[in-house]
Amino acid sequence: MTMLDIIEKKKRGLPLSDSEIEFAVGGYTDGVIPDYQMSAFLMAVYFNGMDDRELFSFTRCMINSGDVLNLSDISGVKADKHSTGGVGDKTTLIVVPMVASCGLKVAKMSGRGLGNTGGTVDKLESVRGFNTQPSGAEFTEQLKRVGAVLSGQTGKLAPADKKIYALRDATNTVDSIPLIASSVMSKKIASGADVIVLDVKVGRGTFMRSANDAELLADTMISIGESYGKKVSVVMSDMNEPLGFAIGNSLEVSEAVSALSGDAPDDLKELCNVLAAQMLSLGGFGTVSECERLAEDSISSGRALEKFKEIISAQGGDVDYMLNMPKAEFQYELKSVSDGYVGGIFADLCGAAAMKLGAGRVRKEDKIDPLAGVRLSKKRGDRVNAGDTLATLYTSERERLNEAAELMEKAFVIDGAPPKKRNLIIKIK
Amino acid sequence: MTMLDIIEKKKRGLPLSDSEIEFAVGGYTDGVIPDYQMSAFLMAVYFNGMDDRELFSFTRCMINSGDVLNLSDISGVKADKHSTGGVGDKTTLIVVPMVASCGLKVAKMSGRGLGNTGGTVDKLESVRGFNTQPSGAEFTEQLKRVGAVLSGQTGKLAPADKKIYALRDATNTVDSIPLIASSVMSKKIASGADVIVLDVKVGRGTFMRSANDAELLADTMISIGESYGKKVSVVMSDMNEPLGFAIGNSLEVSEAVSALSGDAPDDLKELCNVLAAQMLSLGGFGTVSECERLAEDSISSGRALEKFKEIISAQGGDVDYMLNMPKAEFQYELKSVSDGYVGGIFADLCGAAAMKLGAGRVRKEDKIDPLAGVRLSKKRGDRVNAGDTLATLYTSERERLNEAAELMEKAFVIDGAPPKKRNLIIKIK
Repeated sequence: MTMLDIIEKKKRGLPLSDSEIEFAVGGYTDGVIPDYQMSAFLMAVYFNGMDDRELFSFTRCMINSGDVLNLSDISGVKADKHSTGGVGDKTTLIVVPMVASCGLKVAKMSGRGLGNTGGTVDKLESVRGFNTQPSGAEFTEQLKRVGAVLSGQTGKLAPADKKIYALRDATNTVDSIPLIASSVMSKKIASGADVIVLDVKVGRGTFMRSANDAELLADTMISIGESYGKKVSVVMSDMNEPLGFAIGNSLEVSEAVSALSGDAPDDLKELCNVLAAQMLSLGGFGTVSECERLAEDSISSGRALEKFKEIISAQGGDVDYMLNMPKAEFQYELKSVSDGYVGGIFADLCGAAAMKLGAGRVRKEDKIDPLAGVRLSKKRGDRVNAGDTLATLYTSERERLNEAAELMEKAFVIDGAPPKKRNLIIKIK
Repeated sequence: MTMLDIIEKKKRGLPLSDSEIEFAVGGYTDGVIPDYQMSAFLMAVYFNGMDDRELFSFTRCMINSGDVLNLSDISGVKADKHSTGGVGDKTTLIVVPMVASCGLKVAKMSGRGLGNTGGTVDKLESVRGFNTQPSGAEFTEQLKRVGAVLSGQTGKLAPADKKIYALRDATNTVDSIPLIASSVMSKKIASGADVIVLDVKVGRGTFMRSANDAELLADTMISIGESYGKKVSVVMSDMNEPLGFAIGNSLEVSEAVSALSGDAPDDLKELCNVLAAQMLSLGGFGTVSECERLAEDSISSGRALEKFKEIISAQGGDVDYMLNMPKAEFQYELKSVSDGYVGGIFADLCGAAAMKLGAGRVRKEDKIDPLAGVRLSKKRGDRVNAGDTLATLYTSERERLNEAAELMEKAFVIDGAPPKKRNLIIKIK
């Protein structure tokens, strides 16, 4: 068996055997198969896909390439959530304390961000002192005592996925449904949760631009999860516009604190309630509508906010600092030049603007400016008058403002009439 | 502009601009673009192809990556031929002296072989003393004086193609029509000939297994050649069975000498006459039927054989050695176990057997056994009795015989009735 034979079969659309897939994934992870052969293979997968058996086999190889966490020592159902990524998506920071305050345990491992804004780990690191790398013992102890951990990924979880993902990123083979599904699910399954809720984003701010593709991705991830006996639910949500007002690490943490205090933009509130209700319901806390009430109560009672502070504090974060985040030194207010209605706010351009301000990284080694980002003042459908502030831009380096402001100007569409209403939640599966 | 953008466009089936193609080919040749990005790009080309403009641009970049030979100092029309490669294909050794003895100049650069048997250069190197690397001055002087040169490729001809071809070979992206066509034609055009005759093989012994694909390849190569003002003709010929009796380097040289002496197997004679007539006719020596007679006369008069000896001698080869080639130390006669007719002789299995005997190389650095190979005693349609010799296997290492003999047993199909006649020449374009 050689990697050349395996590339050839996939190129011709023939299904690969389990041992061929093991050979490819194992050989690449061990460094025996060179990058240039793996990238040719991944491009062939982009074009010819994988059938279910191949997909399960590919995912299994990535799971078994590293540690598989065993959470069975910890009593109760363990839940996890994952978002395919969007602009202004801070739901993890809100949903995890919501469900944890209801008694559902959450062992959440998050990634750093590449492109756009930071990942959840980057957001949390904008809180002074917060440790995103607890040891195994600390992780387990906190999960038992506090009921939730917000941790970075350990190096030993699905290392094959880590290596393959980096190559996909460098060869533009990211947007393949079987490759996305196997990458996400290998990490989720290796993390050991019983219940997994996935937020699949659709629209301009994501790499899934069509609802059909997003649905196919959802079905694929569900079938992988179920083959491992996991309870999986997928929420498909619109990401043509940023979620909430804040884009950028510390700005999003502050918005999460507001949301946990009961003061959330409508879209953010709706999505968090849906995600929390799905997690709670799969976790055995009642029907979805019963769990929606539990989720709302967790906010109105103040329990979710308390739980968030407890998590932050347990991981060394400075809660007072978080509640009074500093603002970036340089700010710019983008004003409307005309009267009308906000017809749309392009998420991809907002993401690019936040990036220019320093909120994201182009290369892995880039440093993030935790205070950089954009805070919207208006959302889609809002009435505006000439001179009204549409958004405020934040950065610690003044020379970053100009280009970002140009992008934000293009991001806002001002129309004469209000836009048609659009549903945030596209489908729940 | 980045290679990632270029990969993305090709992946989505969007046409690339000339400057994007220059960026990709130039960057890869200079070592700025890594192998893994180029291989992803090549796999995307395999799936999405190239339109004519992209193809011409891609070919132009490969031509301009190195020297372009200027043969205008040498009087008369200069011709070249190329075969896409098959098993037992020694036509260059016969056709070049045939047309040169008629006065058509041939500046032929050939490659070494990878897989199956050796290339023309390997075959010629089985003649003691023969120098396949004449200097530029020797090349020109011989072309003027003798009228033909049989040389290896110089390192400076289309180096971009050389690097890209090696990567295609290592990533199974060889069998793409635009990639084959641009690779062949970039070298042919850089070699400076006015007339180019291409022998496109179809069948089991080649990577073009369907006549449709072969025809598409033919049309593509003709359109590239004509865009450079070259006269191009394509002969499509069957390669389901080996050409002639001999497979392997010195064995093929001996068969070429026999053919030039007027003693050729029917298939080899037919193809050589057709190729020679096409070259002569495009070179201005008359109509195709007039040139067929010229070609036949070159053999019957003995002029072609004399020209071959002259070429061999001019490049330092030992003509007496060539006329009395030694035989390999170890031989094995494969006998028929039944009575009947030869229904077929699978070229790919014969090639694999010759390889096992030492006639080809798996890796570039492998050494070839010049005396190794197979000599068929029977051809398709021949009557055989049990005990008749079907083929003789030759090698310098006894332990290579067993596996090769097993392959050759599978290569021969013996049927009760004679097979239907099959045309060797499929089409001339």
